[in-house]
Amino acid sequence: MEKLENSTDCKETVSPLNNSGSVLNSTAPRHEAMGFVLVHAGAGYHSESKAKEYKHVCKRACQRAVDRLRAGGLALEAVTAALIELEDSPFTNAGTGSNLNLSGEIECDASIMDGKSLNYGAVGALSGIKNPVLVARRLLSETQKGKLSAGRIPPCFLVGKGAEQWAISHGIPACPTEKMTTKFSLSGYKRNKRKMELAEQVETKRRRHSCGHENDLGCLEPVGDIMVEGEENNSACLDTVGAVVVDREGNVAAAVSSGGLAMKHPGRVGQAAHYGCGCWAENARDVSLYSTAVSTSGSGEHLIRTMLARECSTSMQTENAHQALLEAMQNKFISSPFLAGEDCVLGGVIVLRCCTCGEAQRSEDIQALLVEFLWSHTTESMCVGYMSAQDSKPRTHISRLPPGAVAGQSLAIEGGVCRLGTASD
Amino acid sequence: MEKLENSTDCKETVSPLNNSGSVLNSTAPRHEAMGFVLVHAGAGYHSESKAKEYKHVCKRACQRAVDRLRAGGLALEAVTAALIELEDSPFTNAGTGSNLNLSGEIECDASIMDGKSLNYGAVGALSGIKNPVLVARRLLSETQKGKLSAGRIPPCFLVGKGAEQWAISHGIPACPTEKMTTKFSLSGYKRNKRKMELAEQVETKRRRHSCGHENDLGCLEPVGDIMVEGEENNSACLDTVGAVVVDREGNVAAAVSSGGLAMKHPGRVGQAAHYGCGCWAENARDVSLYSTAVSTSGSGEHLIRTMLARECSTSMQTENAHQALLEAMQNKFISSPFLAGEDCVLGGVIVLRCCTCGEAQRSEDIQALLVEFLWSHTTESMCVGYMSAQDSKPRTHISRLPPGAVAGQSLAIEGGVCRLGTASD
Repeated sequence: MEKLENSTDCKETVSPLNNSGSVLNSTAPRHEAMGFVLVHAGAGYHSESKAKEYKHVCKRACQRAVDRLRAGGLALEAVTAALIELEDSPFTNAGTGSNLNLSGEIECDASIMDGKSLNYGAVGALSGIKNPVLVARRLLSETQKGKLSAGRIPPCFLVGKGAEQWAISHGIPACPTEKMTTKFSLSGYKRNKRKMELAEQVETKRRRHSCGHENDLGCLEPVGDIMVEGEENNSACLDTVGAVVVDREGNVAAAVSSGGLAMKHPGRVGQAAHYGCGCWAENARDVSLYSTAVSTSGSGEHLIRTMLARECSTSMQTENAHQALLEAMQNKFISSPFLAGEDCVLGGVIVLRCCTCGEAQRSEDIQALLVEFLWSHTTESMCVGYMSAQDSKPRTHISRLPPGAVAGQSLAIEGGVCRLGTASD
Repeated sequence: MEKLENSTDCKETVSPLNNSGSVLNSTAPRHEAMGFVLVHAGAGYHSESKAKEYKHVCKRACQRAVDRLRAGGLALEAVTAALIELEDSPFTNAGTGSNLNLSGEIECDASIMDGKSLNYGAVGALSGIKNPVLVARRLLSETQKGKLSAGRIPPCFLVGKGAEQWAISHGIPACPTEKMTTKFSLSGYKRNKRKMELAEQVETKRRRHSCGHENDLGCLEPVGDIMVEGEENNSACLDTVGAVVVDREGNVAAAVSSGGLAMKHPGRVGQAAHYGCGCWAENARDVSLYSTAVSTSGSGEHLIRTMLARECSTSMQTENAHQALLEAMQNKFISSPFLAGEDCVLGGVIVLRCCTCGEAQRSEDIQALLVEFLWSHTTESMCVGYMSAQDSKPRTHISRLPPGAVAGQSLAIEGGVCRLGTASD
């Protein structure tokens, strides 16, 4: 992977990805194109002390996805395998180890999209299921089977208790919340609760002295999915996870999973369960030269209102992927008219885009794919991992804003290019 | 209102709205521009026998909205007032009289969007609250107040029990489900349950004789939000309701509310609670000449996957509103690649678009607005009502597909133009 650019001033034009087909990274393949995976363990704040854990889970997630690709699995299967690994890690804010809500409960959001069929499945505020992505995946599969009895249209989005019941009735085992709660998530909850109580005491005092200006409440500290946990000494990126995959046939898929905002109100659903906001995948077709897959992370409400996953995907149909993503993050997120009142817009995306490259025409039996993979974030840091099916091991990276850059107002953007399936290499 | 066009063949080019500022309908105002409302009581099937009821509720909803506009209320208040009236009717599938789900319970979806602030609020699978739109509206208001204690971002989307608790804690009274269940919705539930049981018996028999082709299940009859109730003799449009409003300042707002698909799985959330799918409102700004507001109705999953509300809004920035909506309904809905496997795509939209018209430049103290209002549907029929703040009474209309047109494959499109606030008239 070649680090391409960090941008502190978002209006600055940065060097584009070389889009002419040259290979910028060392993941050049030897044999048949079998796919590529890019995962994230959240855009937020990753302390140096915890970096090893996050990188490790990203590595395992990449490996799981590549195992499926090598076994002949398609993008949808591989992306699900990556998500299960990310959800099972006690260090990520998804599945086991998820943030606890105001009532001390776990409620998860997850969604998955298949670029080939454009089918989609999502669950919101789901409790009692170890791997929410499996429920989203099953909803997607069921929609592909056609109508239910008496011609009813199968649901693509289920929430709460109904989602849990549906999952169990479809053979996905229940899991007690206690088993998904970690020592770490519980101590975070207790700490956050104390902070909130303190903040509310301060606010009550301010209100008494501010002539009833109830809207003018100061904040103890800025918080997003992660910032409420933002004590430097014990910081962790309790954040959304996701993955994007392209398979040997050039199909893309994307998925995202999240325990949601720490101390959220019960029933709050974030971007991870929101169509167009948490993930997006679209294979190339008539009007679209490129297949694209996107997964997002960050402050759910900001990602919902800007529909960031779909916006990034749409922007990727211009020639220069790096420039397109930079402009999307700047114009459709940081400076979005949908977030006009927000001075701190926190989020990150991973993006995969691919197309058949020149060499494909030389060989009839091997399809060559040019895969561009990028990530961008306005948060302090973002942890990513990536791997092609030809690589012997995954690579991981914690991308950080440059020193002095202001989180929520600046962005970092990096990425690479990988050519798959050129047998002549 | 002048009926503009019915199109049985969706590829046919139809006469556009006259967009040059001439007034096509008789709602020409006499005094200050004070706004306009367009409501719908669902796209589905409206029998002649029930037409009077639907028209009546649309009239009352228009009147409520106009009352608010005349009292100086803005679009957001007016659209809420219209929705409350629509929800309170026992004949509509929203609030009181909502479809019952598989468990015989009411779970409602609703959302609202303010074109001025671009703020948004939504609730999904909400039980025990008489007017779901009030909860969506309150969520929207709370996001405008800024962050919660300890800097937490306020939610814009709440579901299930958590949404109900949030509503009650914010002063919205609880309402027992029994009070929202009507004799009509209960008899519909019982009838549908019998149908489903019969359908499942037939499917079980087929399965036994079809060598295990489980995916090849026939349907007793096509059903959407409404079709499961589609017995001609007792048919009713148990469907989503919605409204779009422009106020005296030219602000637009949109809202939608639904009891969802009859016999849906508990926890199923439809388009009415989905950002970009159920409603959309955007005031004109730099790059957008027109303010637009959209509310949708129909098969929730189709409306979600095509993001129809936002797509229609986006399409409205070209000159010819009628042609733009026709193309959006054809290309982004009926023939959408996101619904490639569907041969019956059921839905409808109401659309408001407005801009400052020529005459405004002549008068400094009165702003003149050109309001174009349209509706389009692929369902058998759609019931709409509309009224300007200068009108003495609302108008209603049940739009129907022309004889011979196939629901789910053809569309009807109609509308009108109204000039508001031209004191010289």
